[in-house]
Amino acid sequence: MIMMIPSVLWMASAHADEGMWTPEQVPAMAEQLEEMGLQLNASVLADPRSAPLSAVISLGGCSASFVSPDGLIATNHHCVEQYLQVNATGEADLARDGMLATDRAGELSAGPTARVTITERIDDVTDTINAAVGRRMKDTDRKAAVEMAQKQLIRDCEAEAADRRCRVASFYEGLSYRLIVSRQLDDLRLVYAPPRSVGSYGGEVDNWMWPRHTGDFALLRVYVAPDGSAAPYHADNVPYQPDHHLPLDLDGVSPGEFVMVAGYPGFTRRLDRVSELRHSAEVRYPERLELFREMKAVLEDHSARSPEAAAKLASPMLGLANLEKNNAELLTMLEETDIIADRAADEAALDAWLASARSRRRTARTVAELEAVIAEQQAFSRRSQKLQSMRWAADLLGVAHRAYRTAIEAEKPDIDREPGYQDRDRPRLVAYFKQLDDTIYLPADRDVFAVVIDFYMKSPEEQRDQRIDEWFSRMGGVEAALDALYTEPALADADARLALLEMDRDTFEASDDPWVQLAVLVESVLAEQRAESRRLTGAMMRLRPQVVAANLERKGADSMYPDANSTLRLTFGHVTGWSPADGVVYLPQTTLQGLANKATGEPPFDAPERLLARVGEQTRWADPDLGDVPVNFLSTLDITGGNSGSATLNDNGELVGLAFDGNIDSIGADWMYGDTARTIHVDVRYLLWTLEGMPDAAWLLDELQGK
Amino acid sequence: MIMMIPSVLWMASAHADEGMWTPEQVPAMAEQLEEMGLQLNASVLADPRSAPLSAVISLGGCSASFVSPDGLIATNHHCVEQYLQVNATGEADLARDGMLATDRAGELSAGPTARVTITERIDDVTDTINAAVGRRMKDTDRKAAVEMAQKQLIRDCEAEAADRRCRVASFYEGLSYRLIVSRQLDDLRLVYAPPRSVGSYGGEVDNWMWPRHTGDFALLRVYVAPDGSAAPYHADNVPYQPDHHLPLDLDGVSPGEFVMVAGYPGFTRRLDRVSELRHSAEVRYPERLELFREMKAVLEDHSARSPEAAAKLASPMLGLANLEKNNAELLTMLEETDIIADRAADEAALDAWLASARSRRRTARTVAELEAVIAEQQAFSRRSQKLQSMRWAADLLGVAHRAYRTAIEAEKPDIDREPGYQDRDRPRLVAYFKQLDDTIYLPADRDVFAVVIDFYMKSPEEQRDQRIDEWFSRMGGVEAALDALYTEPALADADARLALLEMDRDTFEASDDPWVQLAVLVESVLAEQRAESRRLTGAMMRLRPQVVAANLERKGADSMYPDANSTLRLTFGHVTGWSPADGVVYLPQTTLQGLANKATGEPPFDAPERLLARVGEQTRWADPDLGDVPVNFLSTLDITGGNSGSATLNDNGELVGLAFDGNIDSIGADWMYGDTARTIHVDVRYLLWTLEGMPDAAWLLDELQGK
Repeated sequence: MIMMIPSVLWMASAHADEGMWTPEQVPAMAEQLEEMGLQLNASVLADPRSAPLSAVISLGGCSASFVSPDGLIATNHHCVEQYLQVNATGEADLARDGMLATDRAGELSAGPTARVTITERIDDVTDTINAAVGRRMKDTDRKAAVEMAQKQLIRDCEAEAADRRCRVASFYEGLSYRLIVSRQLDDLRLVYAPPRSVGSYGGEVDNWMWPRHTGDFALLRVYVAPDGSAAPYHADNVPYQPDHHLPLDLDGVSPGEFVMVAGYPGFTRRLDRVSELRHSAEVRYPERLELFREMKAVLEDHSARSPEAAAKLASPMLGLANLEKNNAELLTMLEETDIIADRAADEAALDAWLASARSRRRTARTVAELEAVIAEQQAFSRRSQKLQSMRWAADLLGVAHRAYRTAIEAEKPDIDREPGYQDRDRPRLVAYFKQLDDTIYLPADRDVFAVVIDFYMKSPEEQRDQRIDEWFSRMGGVEAALDALYTEPALADADARLALLEMDRDTFEASDDPWVQLAVLVESVLAEQRAESRRLTGAMMRLRPQVVAANLERKGADSMYPDANSTLRLTFGHVTGWSPADGVVYLPQTTLQGLANKATGEPPFDAPERLLARVGEQTRWADPDLGDVPVNFLSTLDITGGNSGSATLNDNGELVGLAFDGNIDSIGADWMYGDTARTIHVDVRYLLWTLEGMPDAAWLLDELQGK
Repeated sequence: MIMMIPSVLWMASAHADEGMWTPEQVPAMAEQLEEMGLQLNASVLADPRSAPLSAVISLGGCSASFVSPDGLIATNHHCVEQYLQVNATGEADLARDGMLATDRAGELSAGPTARVTITERIDDVTDTINAAVGRRMKDTDRKAAVEMAQKQLIRDCEAEAADRRCRVASFYEGLSYRLIVSRQLDDLRLVYAPPRSVGSYGGEVDNWMWPRHTGDFALLRVYVAPDGSAAPYHADNVPYQPDHHLPLDLDGVSPGEFVMVAGYPGFTRRLDRVSELRHSAEVRYPERLELFREMKAVLEDHSARSPEAAAKLASPMLGLANLEKNNAELLTMLEETDIIADRAADEAALDAWLASARSRRRTARTVAELEAVIAEQQAFSRRSQKLQSMRWAADLLGVAHRAYRTAIEAEKPDIDREPGYQDRDRPRLVAYFKQLDDTIYLPADRDVFAVVIDFYMKSPEEQRDQRIDEWFSRMGGVEAALDALYTEPALADADARLALLEMDRDTFEASDDPWVQLAVLVESVLAEQRAESRRLTGAMMRLRPQVVAANLERKGADSMYPDANSTLRLTFGHVTGWSPADGVVYLPQTTLQGLANKATGEPPFDAPERLLARVGEQTRWADPDLGDVPVNFLSTLDITGGNSGSATLNDNGELVGLAFDGNIDSIGADWMYGDTARTIHVDVRYLLWTLEGMPDAAWLLDELQGK
């Protein structure tokens, strides 16, 4: 009458599974990885040319992996949405409806911008970079010198082969540099993508959430010229034969099992100092949150009063709401976790270690100097942020400023201009200037600008600029200035905006349009700020590596990992749930039945009828313990943006799923890895079950199973 | 590095733990109970005079139990709130702050209405009742005849002893009757009650919710005269020595353990026919929900427009919101569970069984007749409900009607009047008539009444009454009638309302006040309806027992239990959580740490600082598996209103907790017990831990531990 279902709850001890490790770090971790459950020899994970790493590739912004000897690639559905849009026609909305090639001939080009990058070699180029930066080089010149050295390395590297793509990545805050040598292939084709109602089932509602039931998978294939060389899309091209591909583990994973993810995480700030975290927690995020909230209130107020406003402001309001939510959650994370206390304890330990030997005094002074530069940087950013906000909040100021700076940059040869102000950028600028008519709503724009001006005026004198203050005085105060700016502004007319792009610098500076006058003034302040920013960045580049070096010496190189920088990384952990609250456990797997329970027929829970009809049917892809097909699973793996689509591998290097999201406790992944941070994966058996339901997918199912 | 925490999830198979069993049913369940884990001999649970049942008592509306040889009683905090209010003085708000007697002399009288009832004997009086109801008795007379027989039994029973209290309870829809012979003790004293911030921690927010952290416990003591007889509060009284008390299990319960609850569940309708459930699902609840929603919208609208309205309407709006929520949840339960399909299958099985033998044809006809009476009853209730709603919605109609009926009843001797219309009810009526000035807001009252009239007018002719229709016609239509009723109504004045209570029947019937005229008309219709209701009730009393008898014969008496009727019942099950959604498990225990995590400092999460300060400290009351003191736990037990404060017993009959609530899946407990219905208990160790934190409670801790 009573059944006992033994359920195993795996709990990782604190930070055990933290780390986005470079391949070269892995051999030193061999013993720990074996203990965690890795069956492979850890040393094979050091080599990007060996299996399984050689099967792991980048789509640029997303990760992916080869899953067949014929160049078939698995990645996330959300990574291929743009490719689906490329193929949209009048009748067919592939991003909405999905697609399945019924044979290879039916595979669709992912478009001219799609490409895959396969890491071939990682060379240490630290000495080359350091040699380019003289010891006595002024901080102001440092950034440009490093960039120049990088450009030369890349140029030489890419000259070696037509399909060669190279970049120089900085590790440990510039302590070392690596030249990442890759092969780029350009003929990428869509093989299978589920409809949006499967691929992003749950949509924004379920984003960051668990339990999750998202079929965030898609299949692509890479093609090359018949001679094996890289080539753009051509009908004669043939499937690429990768050196290795990942076999699928058809039995999938179970709770407690070892898993690892190999992919290309984009960006983290885990080496930030406490002073930087505090600035975010105490100044940056609270100020931004207050600003976002006041701006949103203005937009809501206008939307409630006018249908025209409601239509034009819907999109910016949604944008502000998202910014507000993200900011608020990050702030909560900084306030409610131990991140700052833990980091402070670590810095105190460093200080004590530095103080414990005469030879380390110099580094102690470096730490002090770094803190001084951080303080300068923070004061600077509080100042510059105010002006940036003005430019961001008032569309017409943004237009006038953009046009004025275009006129200034136009005085240089095109190649020397700042990115964004070259001839190639002009069409986008013209389009933006025209399209503004559809989105600008001046009454709200005025009130939003008033909010930003108010923030500026309330700030202490050292955060303001006398020239800006004087301009408002000259205009007769803020209200009078706003009246002048917003009373039938000439720039409200698209032709007047486009005319700005024909004006030269002197014409701007002689203009009597108040928006143009304000833009000229703002640019003169911003130009000074850009120079100061170069100096501060140069000082950071000089000081930070020394502090990291001291920490590496103190802690041992095996216990630290460099911040994510879009290079190939590995993370190791286990399939496990977590307890979000006392008395509640989130299990690490979800099922088809759970997916069906969520279905409402309305987006984002509009699972296809034909899929729902199969739920509960006998299938080879059911998990015997669950008695159902697993849909998503959780792990303790440490990922961040850029890892989307990453191969999730079992202890033997076989594919068990694809990483596609993190739980809400991982929202602070930029700064930290917490005990309850979890990666969310789609189970490879859900992909196989979905294909099983489509008669025309048998060939693909066979290819995935190596038949 | 990785720890495995084996956690056991117990799942009860469907309906295994359903049932509110009478003590006399328990011996037949011995084998099943032993299998479930009961260590006691099941036969002891049949006897209300043996331990443990003899320690289980009623507070009238709540259950309780003796927990020391000196008459100490454990029950819920929410069961003693009224006693705490009795003791409120200018300075001290005991309901808010709680209280602890520092010795027996400090125990506070729970007031003149407090009492405990101890069941002494349960006698079968079915024959006596049946004898009073002649075979050929008309349905109209049946109810009165049964009530008269009951009154006589009670009078004779209570004549036996001064502290004797007796009642006759109907079981199985009147198939059998029992005389419940009890002893009533009247000197009840408060010993310990935690502050509201512990006793109802989580308040309305957490009501029906899990995870839960409510310290819903309190201690009382019963006193008797020095000679052992029942007596009202007196300083010379001494603690009552119960025959038995429940020892505490100081080690508490663990997940999966057998538990049982003994107490006084109030009321269920588990034997309702499918036609009755369908009427609730399709007519009664949807109609009520629509009405509540429209009325609430009216009140919200007025509240938004006027601060006076907002103040006066806050309380009725909250009441309507609660009614709406409860109704909506019950409706969801009826629609989304299998209750109706399951019940229909059971009825089909009965029909087949009845059809399978000639001898059962008569009962088959009874079933058909019962269905016909149910249909009549439903048509009747749709009709009468409309008039009841009018009286309920319009305060001035309620006043006029109440006064008119008082005048009619006043024509009879006081003893023969309907309850609510006797001389003893007059002070309450006067208070209500006066206090109406503080709560009535005529503009909203008019709009609410208009909603109800609109519901009436929209209903088909057979649900209306021609006399009511004609009255509105005579008044010139609904709008004109509302104008006449609400234009400076005389009854808006308290003196005018009180004057109604001095009027005789003829004066009412000759009045030209439109409210009084409407009340006289409504009463003439209601009087007819009351007569019809008596006939329908009599028919039900005749038919229902025969259907239950057939089901008992078909299924066996051991597989059915009578509906709850405020008599002593037992329910058996296990400590276990449930899965509220795919991928989510609610564990069956919560902890102090979870309580602290919920604390916000604001009600209802304003746990006392001195309690929070002790969380995490070493204590004897911690559970070794949890590493913390358990606060609340879940079980599969089947309880309902009236069970609050019930002793939760382990397999050996020792006290492990107190039942105080159900989870949201048990909201339909009136009609059904579902697989995921759970009872929520407070763990006895949380009570002990709380007392441990108070230096003046050592004597009480000793008493509870039998020291």
